Amino acid sequence: RSMAAVLRGSRYLVGRSFNHGAFAFVSSRSMASKTPVGFIGLGNMGNPMAKNLLKHGYPIIATDVFPESCKEVQELGAQIVDSPAEVADKADRIITMLPSSPNVMEVYTGSNGILKKVKKGSLLIDSSTIDPTVSKEMAAAAEKMGAVFMDAPVSGGVGAASSAKLTFMVGGAEEEFTAAKELLSCMGANVVYCGQVGTGQAAKICNNMLLAIGMIGTAETMNLGIRLGLDPKLLAKILNMSSGRCWSSDTYNPVPGVMEGVPSGNNYQGGFGTQLMAKDLGLAQNTATNTKTPVPLGSLAHQIYRMMCARGYASKDFSSVFAFLREEEGQQ
Amino acid sequence: RSMAAVLRGSRYLVGRSFNHGAFAFVSSRSMASKTPVGFIGLGNMGNPMAKNLLKHGYPIIATDVFPESCKEVQELGAQIVDSPAEVADKADRIITMLPSSPNVMEVYTGSNGILKKVKKGSLLIDSSTIDPTVSKEMAAAAEKMGAVFMDAPVSGGVGAASSAKLTFMVGGAEEEFTAAKELLSCMGANVVYCGQVGTGQAAKICNNMLLAIGMIGTAETMNLGIRLGLDPKLLAKILNMSSGRCWSSDTYNPVPGVMEGVPSGNNYQGGFGTQLMAKDLGLAQNTATNTKTPVPLGSLAHQIYRMMCARGYASKDFSSVFAFLREEEGQQ
Amino acid sequence: RSMAAVLRGSRYLVGRSFNHGAFAFVSSRSMASKTPVGFIGLGNMGNPMAKNLLKHGYPIIATDVFPESCKEVQELGAQIVDSPAEVADKADRIITMLPSSPNVMEVYTGSNGILKKVKKGSLLIDSSTIDPTVSKEMAAAAEKMGAVFMDAPVSGGVGAASSAKLTFMVGGAEEEFTAAKELLSCMGANVVYCGQVGTGQAAKICNNMLLAIGMIGTAETMNLGIRLGLDPKLLAKILNMSSGRCWSSDTYNPVPGVMEGVPSGNNYQGGFGTQLMAKDLGLAQNTATNTKTPVPLGSLAHQIYRMMCARGYASKDFSSVFAFLREEEGQQ
Amino acid sequence: RSMAAVLRGSRYLVGRSFNHGAFAFVSSRSMASKTPVGFIGLGNMGNPMAKNLLKHGYPIIATDVFPESCKEVQELGAQIVDSPAEVADKADRIITMLPSSPNVMEVYTGSNGILKKVKKGSLLIDSSTIDPTVSKEMAAAAEKMGAVFMDAPVSGGVGAASSAKLTFMVGGAEEEFTAAKELLSCMGANVVYCGQVGTGQAAKICNNMLLAIGMIGTAETMNLGIRLGLDPKLLAKILNMSSGRCWSSDTYNPVPGVMEGVPSGNNYQGGFGTQLMAKDLGLAQNTATNTKTPVPLGSLAHQIYRMMCARGYASKDFSSVFAFLREEEGQQ
Repeated sequence: RSMAAVLRGSRYLVGRSFNHGAFAFVSSRSMASKTPVGFIGLGNMGNPMAKNLLKHGYPIIATDVFPESCKEVQELGAQIVDSPAEVADKADRIITMLPSSPNVMEVYTGSNGILKKVKKGSLLIDSSTIDPTVSKEMAAAAEKMGAVFMDAPVSGGVGAASSAKLTFMVGGAEEEFTAAKELLSCMGANVVYCGQVGTGQAAKICNNMLLAIGMIGTAETMNLGIRLGLDPKLLAKILNMSSGRCWSSDTYNPVPGVMEGVPSGNNYQGGFGTQLMAKDLGLAQNTATNTKTPVPLGSLAHQIYRMMCARGYASKDFSSVFAFLREEEGQQ
Repeated sequence: RSMAAVLRGSRYLVGRSFNHGAFAFVSSRSMASKTPVGFIGLGNMGNPMAKNLLKHGYPIIATDVFPESCKEVQELGAQIVDSPAEVADKADRIITMLPSSPNVMEVYTGSNGILKKVKKGSLLIDSSTIDPTVSKEMAAAAEKMGAVFMDAPVSGGVGAASSAKLTFMVGGAEEEFTAAKELLSCMGANVVYCGQVGTGQAAKICNNMLLAIGMIGTAETMNLGIRLGLDPKLLAKILNMSSGRCWSSDTYNPVPGVMEGVPSGNNYQGGFGTQLMAKDLGLAQNTATNTKTPVPLGSLAHQIYRMMCARGYASKDFSSVFAFLREEEGQQ
Repeated sequence: RSMAAVLRGSRYLVGRSFNHGAFAFVSSRSMASKTPVGFIGLGNMGNPMAKNLLKHGYPIIATDVFPESCKEVQELGAQIVDSPAEVADKADRIITMLPSSPNVMEVYTGSNGILKKVKKGSLLIDSSTIDPTVSKEMAAAAEKMGAVFMDAPVSGGVGAASSAKLTFMVGGAEEEFTAAKELLSCMGANVVYCGQVGTGQAAKICNNMLLAIGMIGTAETMNLGIRLGLDPKLLAKILNMSSGRCWSSDTYNPVPGVMEGVPSGNNYQGGFGTQLMAKDLGLAQNTATNTKTPVPLGSLAHQIYRMMCARGYASKDFSSVFAFLREEEGQQ
Repeated sequence: RSMAAVLRGSRYLVGRSFNHGAFAFVSSRSMASKTPVGFIGLGNMGNPMAKNLLKHGYPIIATDVFPESCKEVQELGAQIVDSPAEVADKADRIITMLPSSPNVMEVYTGSNGILKKVKKGSLLIDSSTIDPTVSKEMAAAAEKMGAVFMDAPVSGGVGAASSAKLTFMVGGAEEEFTAAKELLSCMGANVVYCGQVGTGQAAKICNNMLLAIGMIGTAETMNLGIRLGLDPKLLAKILNMSSGRCWSSDTYNPVPGVMEGVPSGNNYQGGFGTQLMAKDLGLAQNTATNTKTPVPLGSLAHQIYRMMCARGYASKDFSSVFAFLREEEGQQ
């Protein structure tokens, strides 16, 4: 058991014993029984995640570079402060949900960053999707201050964030996983321990790389089959009972009309944007380059999503690669 | 109902009424009650397929360019003849199982080919995996002779052929499908009607292209994850509960030690050879080129399997792409 | 020396001795001194090529599926006939310039094709760009009729055809090359003997595959350099004095403003269309697939030009890949 | 003219006036007339570069992490010191030639780095090939200390370094270029000014990306042509007079026997190693990812060189991609 865990653990004990005592007096689970949780980054994903923590009775100390993003959670009772440093001053468990590596570096190690005021024993959980080497750097910097950093990127979009159905892939010291899971399970349906710091990011990046390959592959295959005279629904059915089966063919088919309730049926609106997929593939590419790992299809998938961004598909769902590859109307 | 079906149908009626009469005298299913079926191509796949037809009581008239290939089915009661033309002279239902397009053209339209002596109304079923345009040409040539041609390539290897668990993807006139299914269901567990002639091949080619993409993608992803510090079994588990899931990750994982009973656990022996996958991807490439369909990942998958053939992986299972991409021992 | 050459040779001797006699009476080059040349396919390329033969004093017997294409050469003195067979009846040297393999097969082996009436010893030169295996088939079919077939595809566009600056890459029996060169050098500046039948096509296909790779590579590189802050003219200059130098960087730069007199300076109009490049890359892909040759970059180049066709670039010059890869205005 | 230039300029004046005086006493070019130049990184490239500076009469103050690397230049008169900081203490013009970005960061900003003791007005020239963003960071750090940083990566290998035939691509403040050129022209034949800091790296990376694409493309094309029956020398000749022409086809042909004096004629020994090319392509990939630039062929070239490293080609010349793509002996 790490020193950090012991330090924070002692605070927990206080909380828990108080809690025990409280049970004698109140009939329902007391809000007051939980120590505050910091939350930094209240964007499309962070907002519903923070709300789910509030629903579970955690007092929230939050901040965001865009003050208007804080409004909604403030109305639900969150306390808004001015900087990550202030959050760290008021909470010893902090969750961060940020767009990219530079934001994470700024929020943790910047001049008003968490580490300026972090308490010994604090648990810092970063749910951003970033380069695992940055996660490792943040972990090392946190450790110097006596705090614990874990990476816990999510799988699932805004819908899953709202309904607390996210999957968290968690990297970091194993003895801290229970403490992390307590919070993360308020916001997600699955919390998976992946190994040392950075492996949460690694698992996320790996999954999304294979997802992108499967999606483009499905789009190419469906397009080819249609041109060869196959009915798209029938082709999907055949693939799904055969060895071509994948999530993109059986759960998120990119061809309009094959499935209900997926972005391909709604002009590729909603879902997971091409630009976001391109970003994740860029991370996969970087980690592959840095570790000298050949990823020929992953690399080409990256390039295809990058070309799509250049050709106007940036904000469409990533299954719109089917539309990108398809012949334009009136062309041959 | 096509004229061909009517012609052959009349023969069926004779057989069936005889059959009915037979039921009065014998307690078990009579061998004599079924009209002979021709079988051309007794290789690794054709041999067990023909045996399954024999097991179901169909008299077999067979031939192969390699006489020794005929020995086994001959001992089980098949009649061996010298040429496809002779088979066509003696049987009005014929199944062909051949290595590639030129063999199919020779067997059907060559100087001793089926079409030299085919009877009006005959049903010709080709289970080879070939270019769908060749299937269409054979169908047109058969039609001129008053016969019916269907393409019915299989999914599943030698094991599935032996245990009659193949999947048949069938293209051709819909009114002939029932007649084809009668025979094919003796050799396979699934018989799927795909549409007009050539669509069986199209479905097969599409499935295998997506399979190859999924397999290489899985190999790249697992390799990257391992280098990033993830345990391979854990990574496979995470992918399989997430959107990266595919047949290659959850049923045929290419990483040694992740699953039991797959070629990756047996030094990539057995299974589906890299050379065969390269052949199918060549067909996919050709049909994509001919129909002007962009297939960037399918095309790169083709090239990767072709490079593997050049580097000594031709006869290993196609999941050996994991070994191909991996760093050699002692290298950095 | 082949029998065909001997047969045609005897005719030449007649022509030449007549020629000698003629020299006594006329001061200028006599039209009558040359035996007629057949020309089939009077499209954008064939038209100026036939005119150049007329300029050199060869009587022309021509035909085309579109009668209006014949008008111009007819006005210049060519005799127009109804079919390839009629051309073969009237001329023992024939040049064909057709869009693709099926056209070539029809013109040579169709029901009104050249081979229906070809004279023994005739020289048949095909300047179309087609699959080398089709060239070999045509050569074999011609040989059966006692005629000689050579493939002689061209490098250079409509401009080079008009100014007789084409390069011909010639495959076929070496002893016939001199006879072929006599005609081809009226239409081109370079006539290169490549080897047996089909090697002319092979050389053409190889060149265009490497050209496509170089062009896309140059476009990617220039785009990347510009985004990294380099001036495009300076970058082109640096590449052209370094090992990155290629025809696409130093002669046909795809970036608007870097060079004068190339399609990139004229909104990618004129030049060599993306669709035509995609067709040639399809031929390269097919020959690579058939010979089991890995061509990873050639294959991806094919896919990129195919995607460009799907996205509206079909009729723009193939250097427009720079525009395709570039970020759209107003995007990030 | 920058303040840094003015500061260093004043020292130059001192040096030069001293120089003038010296001319009265010595008949030949005096060693003492030049102020010392620092040199950090005496590997395969740095060693001959430093020697060329010595030959031109510059006193050298050098260091390297491997003391044995310093031996040779020490014997030629260079003064060896213990750290980059000491070099900076003794010389106000410093050249660095290091393997990769982390080394550059350490040498400049590490605890014993140049910037710990750098003099105001010093000129720091980095000839390493690294990520241009690192060059920019080093320039900013140097500027804070009143020094000037320029990136000046080289094109050309060990041979060019020995014979002072390198090409330098220089990025940085234009008013410093003359001062940089004075030193660089002792070691190279071409010194090209590319623009602001980082553009030297950008030009280098761009050139090598296009070089890799051209080399793999040439290897694929030559291999395909040979399989189609073309003589390799003839094919190279045709390409080189056509639009497929590139440096890899006309100056460094990868096919054994086509050219003299290139690595392909020497079992791919010497030249520019596959591993080094893979490193440069990794840099190109990173800059493309960071600037969201699609580089499909560049990216695939990177993957191919990475696969080659995994398959035992790491230390062979990068033209060995021809051998990698070729069928193994005894295979089909």
